Amino acid sequence: MQYRPPIRDIRFVIEKVLKAPEMWAVCPPLADLDMSLAGQLIDEAGKFATELLAPTNAAGDREGCRLVQGNVQTPTGFASVYREFVASGWPTLGCAQEHGGQGLPQLVHTAIYEMLLSANHAWSMYPGLLQGAYEVIAAHGSDALRQHYLPRLVSGEWLAAMALTEPQAGSDLAQVKTKARPLPDGSYELDGSKVFISGGDHDLTDNIVHLVLCRVNGAPEGIKGLSLMLVPKLLPDGGRNGIYCEALEEKMGIHGSATCSIRYEAAKGWLIGEPDQGMAAMFIMMNSARLHVAMQGLGHLEYARQTALRYAADRRQMNAPGRQYKAAGGDPIACHPAIRRMLMTIQARTDAVRVLAYQTAMILDEARHGPVSVREEAAARVAIFTPIVKTLLTEYAFQGTSDALQVLGGYGYVREYGIEQHLRDSRIAMIYEGTNEIQAIDLVQRKVLRDDGSALNALLESVLEDVKACPEGLAGIAYAVRRQVANAYLATTTIIVRAKADAEYPYRVADDYLRALGYVLLSWAWLRLARAAGEEADLTYGREKMGMVEFALDWLLPDSVAHWERVMNDQARLPEAPLA
Amino acid sequence: MQYRPPIRDIRFVIEKVLKAPEMWAVCPPLADLDMSLAGQLIDEAGKFATELLAPTNAAGDREGCRLVQGNVQTPTGFASVYREFVASGWPTLGCAQEHGGQGLPQLVHTAIYEMLLSANHAWSMYPGLLQGAYEVIAAHGSDALRQHYLPRLVSGEWLAAMALTEPQAGSDLAQVKTKARPLPDGSYELDGSKVFISGGDHDLTDNIVHLVLCRVNGAPEGIKGLSLMLVPKLLPDGGRNGIYCEALEEKMGIHGSATCSIRYEAAKGWLIGEPDQGMAAMFIMMNSARLHVAMQGLGHLEYARQTALRYAADRRQMNAPGRQYKAAGGDPIACHPAIRRMLMTIQARTDAVRVLAYQTAMILDEARHGPVSVREEAAARVAIFTPIVKTLLTEYAFQGTSDALQVLGGYGYVREYGIEQHLRDSRIAMIYEGTNEIQAIDLVQRKVLRDDGSALNALLESVLEDVKACPEGLAGIAYAVRRQVANAYLATTTIIVRAKADAEYPYRVADDYLRALGYVLLSWAWLRLARAAGEEADLTYGREKMGMVEFALDWLLPDSVAHWERVMNDQARLPEAPLA
Repeated sequence: MQYRPPIRDIRFVIEKVLKAPEMWAVCPPLADLDMSLAGQLIDEAGKFATELLAPTNAAGDREGCRLVQGNVQTPTGFASVYREFVASGWPTLGCAQEHGGQGLPQLVHTAIYEMLLSANHAWSMYPGLLQGAYEVIAAHGSDALRQHYLPRLVSGEWLAAMALTEPQAGSDLAQVKTKARPLPDGSYELDGSKVFISGGDHDLTDNIVHLVLCRVNGAPEGIKGLSLMLVPKLLPDGGRNGIYCEALEEKMGIHGSATCSIRYEAAKGWLIGEPDQGMAAMFIMMNSARLHVAMQGLGHLEYARQTALRYAADRRQMNAPGRQYKAAGGDPIACHPAIRRMLMTIQARTDAVRVLAYQTAMILDEARHGPVSVREEAAARVAIFTPIVKTLLTEYAFQGTSDALQVLGGYGYVREYGIEQHLRDSRIAMIYEGTNEIQAIDLVQRKVLRDDGSALNALLESVLEDVKACPEGLAGIAYAVRRQVANAYLATTTIIVRAKADAEYPYRVADDYLRALGYVLLSWAWLRLARAAGEEADLTYGREKMGMVEFALDWLLPDSVAHWERVMNDQARLPEAPLA
Repeated sequence: MQYRPPIRDIRFVIEKVLKAPEMWAVCPPLADLDMSLAGQLIDEAGKFATELLAPTNAAGDREGCRLVQGNVQTPTGFASVYREFVASGWPTLGCAQEHGGQGLPQLVHTAIYEMLLSANHAWSMYPGLLQGAYEVIAAHGSDALRQHYLPRLVSGEWLAAMALTEPQAGSDLAQVKTKARPLPDGSYELDGSKVFISGGDHDLTDNIVHLVLCRVNGAPEGIKGLSLMLVPKLLPDGGRNGIYCEALEEKMGIHGSATCSIRYEAAKGWLIGEPDQGMAAMFIMMNSARLHVAMQGLGHLEYARQTALRYAADRRQMNAPGRQYKAAGGDPIACHPAIRRMLMTIQARTDAVRVLAYQTAMILDEARHGPVSVREEAAARVAIFTPIVKTLLTEYAFQGTSDALQVLGGYGYVREYGIEQHLRDSRIAMIYEGTNEIQAIDLVQRKVLRDDGSALNALLESVLEDVKACPEGLAGIAYAVRRQVANAYLATTTIIVRAKADAEYPYRVADDYLRALGYVLLSWAWLRLARAAGEEADLTYGREKMGMVEFALDWLLPDSVAHWERVMNDQARLPEAPLA
């Protein structure tokens, strides 16, 4: 199945649903951008994704990465596609013009990455980390570090890797042990071992800039003693630094992405930001990385959507029920109710989460480039969106690729049709950059309880304002959104009050609370899709999107009930220790 | 992670929850059996599964099957483990004594297969098809076929393969094209191609007995023109029959199971049953195969349960919330609420579906060996249980292995820990032997609408009787079961009435209806587990099971609401043709 960039849907969301060009017009650094230019970039990126990148996906899965005499070899074609990527100027899009970038909004960058990730998740992870590394060095790096590293990262001449995890420190970074010893010239010498380092070594670029979480000698224990170091594979004098790739993980998927065990031995590094303030610096990178992981989810979901749809339109089996005319050889399975439901579920989820992911990017742009008066609220809103979007998109990707595989039946289970690779590749996204369970705790503890729900309440008010401004014809979906919002107020109050008496309670309901708030955002997205569909000049397209929203209302929103019920059942019993 | 047979739980379900020995006592052919003998067999099978079979699982996944000069080579060790299996007499357990079997109940056979399937799904598929083939030949084969084939199948000297699917005929067997031409000696000559034939060729036995669905020359079109033929790889005179394995599928999982494309070219075959009555004969085999597939689900789910539990007890990350004592290096992740919920979800599902799967087997025994007066109702009940059990167990297996993988985090995604193989292997079970969507249609159309719900109503009445006989202390779960049953009456009536006006309606809600009825059965299983737990002499074990049931009541049963809601919303809109 050949991937086809969903240009129409992408443009519809950017231009008609989110009305991003109106926002660009009031953000000075983005004022030169219009939909025509953004559309051209998206078209070009779509061509790159289909013509150059997609053909390397299945082969990269089979071939995988190899460790040869300490050096990682990526699958055939990965390095040459990357050279094309750099030559065409893609890495620079999202970076500031002062560092050689093109200063385009995160939104356009995000749309482009959706297509790259549909075409080849594993390959896209190499450049996918660039943006986060760029941001953390730009925000916290010394002048010297910025001058030396930013231009080469912005151009894509060098790539970056995030080195956080150690065998004993996965979700719990307080247990990081890698040591850094200050040297007289102001740099540091690092020793330690990291695992699960994506792109920790590879043959796409000569130099790889590691951002390493470590502990400077004498630092306090725990999270408060962590520092972030820039540790390049090649030193400024051209020499090889003490970074050794000791092993590659054999994984369920993303075989083309090198997941390295890295040993730092007397490796030379430079502090980014202040000593012991590594987590603050790291968070910039992690938020960017979380949106990137969410986009991996969208990429897989979109691929699943079109693969299932095309197969179901083509494959004939039995006559669909309730038809007068019996077609010889059966009807396309897309006519059978069970298959229609699966296809529509993937469709309705893909449409809604694209709105939410792109909206996250758009609010990020607002937080950076918007009028000063709105920046703080925008940043708080991004903080709420990020864990929800990361979780929903990665979960729906896994379910959606599995549903698409089911539509293909036995053919879905064999390698030839490609969907099983997408299922395997998608599975990691629920785990890395903070497991989905960590996202849920982040949401309830840091984003809601910390400010007594005020940022969330402001968001819910915006949703209600949007509902009020809704045309009469959308009363059904508008009512559904109101009900979700009402539940959100009630559940949030319940959690805030009960948490004071039962500190464990928010943790017990965190996963349901995230998904329940997810339905607030999803229903809001469906409302806005319906509104834009009603204004659409192409009546067929508009009717299809309206049908999708009606489907979501009748078949998908009922799933929210159980999540709200569990969140508000503060008497629910959860055994202390699980059965042995 | 080493698999450990859950002997305790298996015995608890057979003896205490289902009280199977009481049933054996009133079934003459099973009257010699008691729990002590059954327990010995289960212990022995557990040893075989862990000591001989489990060690071949990961290696079999990596090595896979190979096609060498037209012959399939299974992974190293598969054939020698099979020889041990035959030498120990395992294949014969479930077969009648008159054919050289041991005449043990399906229930014991099922418990044994749970363990084999936890240890190695791919390997277990080779002998797993024996029981169904045995049953169809015993029921419909001529005397000559039975005399020649049954003893060798019962002993495991030969194995069997079911050959139904063709490229154009997957769910739609009406499109089967393989032809059979009558020969003067009463046999037939077959020509045609089959795909996705599990165990169509292998090196475990010399002879492989193919049961082939085909069309005798001049037969009517469609389902009513299908005949079932016995087509052995080796002919009675020892010569090689015209059966050719042309290719092996490269699949997502079960790499140790040979999925063959088979060409029959002037292959000699013998009719089983009457011409054009192939589907009736095939259904015996398919029901047996569906329970077997359900057991694959249970096998994976149990493996997931113990793997997640052991990892979570061992792995320490962060301090769990609400604890006064902060352990250095963090608490075991099993203490964290999010992980406890995942572990308990897998636990509660595993416990309940084991009850349901074993109950299906027990009712099958009743339908065969029970007093004549109960056989018909028992058979009707098996017909209702089978599609529900096949669907729930295979779906929970995929979700459960995925949840367990999530508990293991990054370590779950790498091959070394084994859980990712179980996730990949489990995924096929939702597809083969009738996709889960086909099961749902089978349930609503054949098992409910065909008799206007009378067999289902009889089942619901048994459930209510059981609830009434329940001790006071179980009022909470008893009330939950009553609510599920009330919903089932209402939903079934709704479907029966509405189907007359809207023939497509049962098809639209079939998937939700199956899952909703699933919650009737699950809640009934939890009720019975709680009752048995209350009578348990081992108080710790009893308390753990009671905690599991309370968890299920508070955290899992709310998921039933959306299914009932969708089933009863006969106005729900499902677009005619999906978006293109």
